[in-house]
Amino acid sequence: MTTLDEALAAIEPLDEAAMAAARDRLDHLTKPPGSLGRLEELAIWMAGLTGHPAASVAHRRIVIAAADHGVAMNQPVSAWPSDVTQQMVSTFLGGRAAISQLAKTVDASIEVIDIGVAGPTRHVMGSAKGTRFVARRIRPGTSDMTEGPVMTRAEADQAIAVGLEAVDRAIADGVELLGVGEMGIGNTTAASAIVAALTRLPPGDVTGRGTGVDDEGLTRKVAAIERAIAVNRPDAGDPVGVLAAVGGFEIAVLVGVIVGAAARRVPLILDGFITGAAALVATGLEPLIAGRLVAAHRSVEPGHAIVLDRLDLRPLLDLDLRLGEGTGAALAMSVFSAAVAIRDGMATFEEAAVSDRR
Amino acid sequence: MTTLDEALAAIEPLDEAAMAAARDRLDHLTKPPGSLGRLEELAIWMAGLTGHPAASVAHRRIVIAAADHGVAMNQPVSAWPSDVTQQMVSTFLGGRAAISQLAKTVDASIEVIDIGVAGPTRHVMGSAKGTRFVARRIRPGTSDMTEGPVMTRAEADQAIAVGLEAVDRAIADGVELLGVGEMGIGNTTAASAIVAALTRLPPGDVTGRGTGVDDEGLTRKVAAIERAIAVNRPDAGDPVGVLAAVGGFEIAVLVGVIVGAAARRVPLILDGFITGAAALVATGLEPLIAGRLVAAHRSVEPGHAIVLDRLDLRPLLDLDLRLGEGTGAALAMSVFSAAVAIRDGMATFEEAAVSDRR
Repeated sequence: MTTLDEALAAIEPLDEAAMAAARDRLDHLTKPPGSLGRLEELAIWMAGLTGHPAASVAHRRIVIAAADHGVAMNQPVSAWPSDVTQQMVSTFLGGRAAISQLAKTVDASIEVIDIGVAGPTRHVMGSAKGTRFVARRIRPGTSDMTEGPVMTRAEADQAIAVGLEAVDRAIADGVELLGVGEMGIGNTTAASAIVAALTRLPPGDVTGRGTGVDDEGLTRKVAAIERAIAVNRPDAGDPVGVLAAVGGFEIAVLVGVIVGAAARRVPLILDGFITGAAALVATGLEPLIAGRLVAAHRSVEPGHAIVLDRLDLRPLLDLDLRLGEGTGAALAMSVFSAAVAIRDGMATFEEAAVSDRR
Repeated sequence: MTTLDEALAAIEPLDEAAMAAARDRLDHLTKPPGSLGRLEELAIWMAGLTGHPAASVAHRRIVIAAADHGVAMNQPVSAWPSDVTQQMVSTFLGGRAAISQLAKTVDASIEVIDIGVAGPTRHVMGSAKGTRFVARRIRPGTSDMTEGPVMTRAEADQAIAVGLEAVDRAIADGVELLGVGEMGIGNTTAASAIVAALTRLPPGDVTGRGTGVDDEGLTRKVAAIERAIAVNRPDAGDPVGVLAAVGGFEIAVLVGVIVGAAARRVPLILDGFITGAAALVATGLEPLIAGRLVAAHRSVEPGHAIVLDRLDLRPLLDLDLRLGEGTGAALAMSVFSAAVAIRDGMATFEEAAVSDRR
């Protein structure tokens, strides 16, 4: 198995020659050069990332990491009770969640990793077709960030390793395109704390309503993050330390998936704010990672725009999503399908006997 | 067959009861209410438009109207020669154009209507699977807008009727979701002239580089539109008159398709700037039409943002497209697939035994 250090060392810049070959092919197709905008950019990026001008992205998977958060179990920072984490994991496995439906529309399988859910997660009915459960629970939820580190550094390393392992498993299964998602009541609090710690911005600037807290809830949420930062004093120069201080088990798994995919040249689509916070940790470890990621959408969470700006990523979609689960990543997979259809199916000017521009 | 006046008279506001029923269903699904943003809005809009809370949009078609433009045949307002119109129609029919590929990814059939192409358009090899050719040529290209009206009012009426007929045919074929597209070298010049005439904005404000004219070409294009408006003096209060003065045959067909779809309660997706100009003409005839349209994407053409603003439509996608052909409309169909998957496939809180919010 790949270790974090091995994975980080394996990360390279995009392959310029493959990108040039892809661009050349696109410029010969029967359309004004560049007129398909971001579809063309995406096809070129896929070439650079994989090293193949005509890389396949037909075999897809959404990896969903799930865990509970001590801060949410202890105090009402979320509009929803922590029970919902395990209930939603069961709904994923039953194939009736939003991500189940969206993954189906883009032919993606789903892998749900329990890295620290507080309740029972194995669905009594077994898993729906195309959905797999991976039991890797470290413990039933993190510790409360307002009282000290949410996890030990050893636990952070363990969760990251679970993410790296998920990439190895995906590649062994023939997966060519990965999306990431998450489930964890309280995890916008953890993500906001990570972003505040890494950017040194005031928690109030990077914290939003998550899945729907009211004004009072938002005030409580910001106060909890401020306290967590005061208690833990996370060091922005030590991203894994930040993760261990104020992050979450599922966010640590996502860091591993992001690093692993970058190392093993699998295109990876981020989802919303939580996965963005994980990407910020990952790029803190190796800045080249940012260029190896696609942002699916711009969430309504205010911290997400800040993350996208730091990563210099322009999202493909802007559909006012704020659910998580990987729903945005699944939607963005249809843009990949379109880019590949263009790249592989169109005639060249010569083939179609179409006049070139004046 | 429906006439334009009959179609306009049949257009109604959205069905509030169906929308409320759709919203209620969405609010019971296992996600925070509204957390799927525009997917939920789209599901609610489909209900209002069709009158059915769970309307199917599985059976899809892209209608592409094609014609040539006298102004482009006479002077170089486009980066491409007018021959390309008929060559691209042949490429559509051969199944190797961008729209051919994108329509396939969303299971949409294609109907290409020749309403005024200047060259031979029947593809020697016949049509690709799922692509139909409809020969309704009025004459081989419009007249030059800088010298007088591009068509007679009778020709405009005839082209609009062809669009209405395309909707009737689609409904007879079981089509439940329509997208519109176009092909016509020079048609960003015609669309800019329409938008300038209807909004009374200076041509320079609504005119862009189309498929890629250089600075000199852009200057020529703006000058041609200014001359056309000076010569024809189109009346903003008479949208069909504007169409006949400075429009195009394919744009007139699109007006018919847009009005017909609104009258017959078929959801219709606009593509880019040209289809937007057609929508501006249609809403000039009946303002309720704007609420019955979906904007697929925001084109890089400057006039498109103005059109979207006038129609009060927020596009679903922003992918820097500037090709036309209905490519954006086809891409947006995948967002419809996602909205329907959510609406029909998710469990309710009760079914999934998930706790509701605090």
